[in-house]
Amino acid sequence: MALSPKLRRLAEALAELPGIGPLSAQRIAFHLLSDDEHAEAHRLAKELEDAAASVRHCARCNTLCESEICDTCSDETREKDKLCIVETPADQLVIEGSHSYRGLYYVLGGRLSPVENRGPEQLGFSRLIERIKEPEVKEVILATSFTAEGDATAHYIALAVSRHRPDIRLTRLARGIPTGIELEYTDVATVAHAILGRRDAESR
Amino acid sequence: MALSPKLRRLAEALAELPGIGPLSAQRIAFHLLSDDEHAEAHRLAKELEDAAASVRHCARCNTLCESEICDTCSDETREKDKLCIVETPADQLVIEGSHSYRGLYYVLGGRLSPVENRGPEQLGFSRLIERIKEPEVKEVILATSFTAEGDATAHYIALAVSRHRPDIRLTRLARGIPTGIELEYTDVATVAHAILGRRDAESR
Repeated sequence: MALSPKLRRLAEALAELPGIGPLSAQRIAFHLLSDDEHAEAHRLAKELEDAAASVRHCARCNTLCESEICDTCSDETREKDKLCIVETPADQLVIEGSHSYRGLYYVLGGRLSPVENRGPEQLGFSRLIERIKEPEVKEVILATSFTAEGDATAHYIALAVSRHRPDIRLTRLARGIPTGIELEYTDVATVAHAILGRRDAESR
Repeated sequence: MALSPKLRRLAEALAELPGIGPLSAQRIAFHLLSDDEHAEAHRLAKELEDAAASVRHCARCNTLCESEICDTCSDETREKDKLCIVETPADQLVIEGSHSYRGLYYVLGGRLSPVENRGPEQLGFSRLIERIKEPEVKEVILATSFTAEGDATAHYIALAVSRHRPDIRLTRLARGIPTGIELEYTDVATVAHAILGRRDAESR
């Protein structure tokens, strides 16, 4: 039994979404069309079109929002001297969820990837450089992923920051053992970073 | 930082899909809207509307298809004396993928669930009974899930079959140890079923 053509096309479109494999995509396609009126499919299509009609990139930090400038950039209580550079709005949400940062953001919308033909121009680095040149920025926090591509992206930005704003403090998120994980099950690269980056114990 | 209203509504709609949690839903929403033209969101919305316009339930087996009668029911080479009852088209796909069954199907579109207020009427059991009454059916294979609700659904159908077609052979999928799994890591209920359902070894 093969899927009917339209069902297969829908499943293929769903399978391109991050974290959804081909079998999940089929299951979701069936789910969306299982009621007689296809109410779920129509509703999701409507939410997609509604969002597509309203959502755009913040002119300042490049995150996704529905106004010229996003709520975070407009928030006067934010610490304007700190600029945290993340790859995606999802990364930004995680940092916000940690309630440990009150500065501003710049969302790259990806990372440098020679394989996927994504260079500094595609990521709009010139806009980022203009942002970094603003004198109120005193610290740039590089919060790209700890992957080869994320590290390369951070390195590239660090070089640009050093060239245009040598006075700026440049930091990278700490690497180490995640909370709630037993040492025994931690990979050696993470353990190495945790040892090299060890800190004085607070109890002494 | 909260998601903007339209983004949040899209993420909420995505989070209702099977197997997608709230965080995955946010990630997918960002992904769909990350390009400037929102091409991905428009494309998925179009596939949804296209599928909703064409896909319907097979008049005979109730699976999802794009014609009055699905390809499987129309296939003259199928063994018409066997009727396999599954919960969803996804279950049907898995059985088809096993290449071990050449009979016909009936897709319930769910299982009995008092909690979700889904009884025999909601599942259209009267249509199923009519199908089972057709004299060409000689065996009904109950392939609902091995969960409390799936077992209850199978039990309910078994009673109905016994009442309307006492001559019919009624079978249920075998329970036992899955392929590729070590005994040590198998749950005790599964092991109990495997022992009670043991078969003569083929080597003797």
